[in-house]
Amino acid sequence: MTVLVFLDPAHENGRVADPAQPQLMATDLGATRGDGIFESMLAVDGVARKVGAHLDRLAKSARTMELDIPSADAWRRAIATALAEHPPAEEIVIKLLVTRGVEGADRPTAWVQADAAGPVGRKQRQEGVDILLLDRGYDSSLAERAPWLLLGAKTLSYAVNMTALRYARAHGADDVIFTSTDGLVLEGPTSTVLMATERDGVKTLVTPLLENGILPGTSQGALFKAAAAAGWQLGYGPLQPHHLLEADAVWLVSSIRLLAPVKSIDGTPIPVSAPMTDELMKLLAEGSQD
Amino acid sequence: MTVLVFLDPAHENGRVADPAQPQLMATDLGATRGDGIFESMLAVDGVARKVGAHLDRLAKSARTMELDIPSADAWRRAIATALAEHPPAEEIVIKLLVTRGVEGADRPTAWVQADAAGPVGRKQRQEGVDILLLDRGYDSSLAERAPWLLLGAKTLSYAVNMTALRYARAHGADDVIFTSTDGLVLEGPTSTVLMATERDGVKTLVTPLLENGILPGTSQGALFKAAAAAGWQLGYGPLQPHHLLEADAVWLVSSIRLLAPVKSIDGTPIPVSAPMTDELMKLLAEGSQD
Repeated sequence: MTVLVFLDPAHENGRVADPAQPQLMATDLGATRGDGIFESMLAVDGVARKVGAHLDRLAKSARTMELDIPSADAWRRAIATALAEHPPAEEIVIKLLVTRGVEGADRPTAWVQADAAGPVGRKQRQEGVDILLLDRGYDSSLAERAPWLLLGAKTLSYAVNMTALRYARAHGADDVIFTSTDGLVLEGPTSTVLMATERDGVKTLVTPLLENGILPGTSQGALFKAAAAAGWQLGYGPLQPHHLLEADAVWLVSSIRLLAPVKSIDGTPIPVSAPMTDELMKLLAEGSQD
Repeated sequence: MTVLVFLDPAHENGRVADPAQPQLMATDLGATRGDGIFESMLAVDGVARKVGAHLDRLAKSARTMELDIPSADAWRRAIATALAEHPPAEEIVIKLLVTRGVEGADRPTAWVQADAAGPVGRKQRQEGVDILLLDRGYDSSLAERAPWLLLGAKTLSYAVNMTALRYARAHGADDVIFTSTDGLVLEGPTSTVLMATERDGVKTLVTPLLENGILPGTSQGALFKAAAAAGWQLGYGPLQPHHLLEADAVWLVSSIRLLAPVKSIDGTPIPVSAPMTDELMKLLAEGSQD
């Protein structure tokens, strides 16, 4: 069951809308130009995780896109309404969406969508994923010199990400890790890349450099905070593909799938560590409470 | 006045829908992921121009995106319905839009939108545009080796194009010409770049190489055909910015604005040729009849 709650100044806690009826104007710039932003978060046992981090990132995407969006409080109230309207479920996916609104209206369209989590995320979390490395076409220094390319914003213009996933599936893989034209590991189409090493009893978590034009991962941020408190060393790239092949474990981490262990890269099997996955899953849950 | 006509197997000529009411589901992948394609064309005195070229390009975008879209005949009937429903106007903008449809439904959402043309296109056609060169972040050889980047498809994921235009306006310009990381002239966010030279009585029209990852321009195609028949020489890049600065005239050409003369590039004035613009406007109209 899908729950829709539109942010609407006339409804303090959001306006609940019928998901079986059309709710968007055909001239909404979200639909006609992918002109908007979004966030996806998980609610576990009725409690949304990392709401603050998602709202912070939504606000950052809005600034990059020059979008005037509802306040964090208005979003929190709409999220609460959506969760109250949704039948209880162990895991509920909550999406926050904002478009630039109907052409000419100069007022964003903003809504919350809640659905029970599907089986694919859980399956990949448990069974792992085979990934392809695909060229993202950008060099790793581009983000800072070309803000119009929106590299740090989570926009609704996700056609390339969706196509990369289809390409992977058509070529026998489950997911993708994008690389830069200068050979660095970037991110997945819907995830952050994470790798771990254990040397002489010292466990280290490493993720690519944010400055390379990737989206700051809310799950990676939550996990790093909890892992540091638990004694892990933390590292930030630059990472090259050979670093992933030489790691003791690699994951795609995202808010809905959580940690998906990477089993192979371009057909080459890599080590998977069930104990480290279990430990990091617990740390991620701890770090995602606020 | 906006006219909406949805392509619907139950309505042979398309289903006319109320533009004042919501018509799209909030879970349509066009709205939530920019996952779809579009075309924009002009109807002059009630007759749509270059319908075949636009339908061909829509079909090409659909193949790139693995979208199963309605037949060319179904689109032609829906376009005719939209024009019949719209009050007479000298210039009507007709958009064809297709999304991957509602999440999970596996059936595209397809519609035609018709509106009277706004004043901006006509103004830019008459008064010209100041443009900025902006880095598109891609090198010119990328398109062929990375099909997942959708470089030759006209997708709904247009946030970068819209942001580049906002960037230009915030910096005192009207529009943008994208360049590749290896220094070649590519295209505008919503237009094809065209330049002309006249040497010893020989007039030559030049546009960037399609192989460099740009969208094939339907107006450029129509104009080249008519210009060749009228005795112009035709050329295809690679073009660098200095070629534009040294040309006798430069235009952004697109289906709605037609030929917009470029008056300056990064603040440097360049020659504008009213006689050539007039001649090419006539040739473009001739080449756009079918």
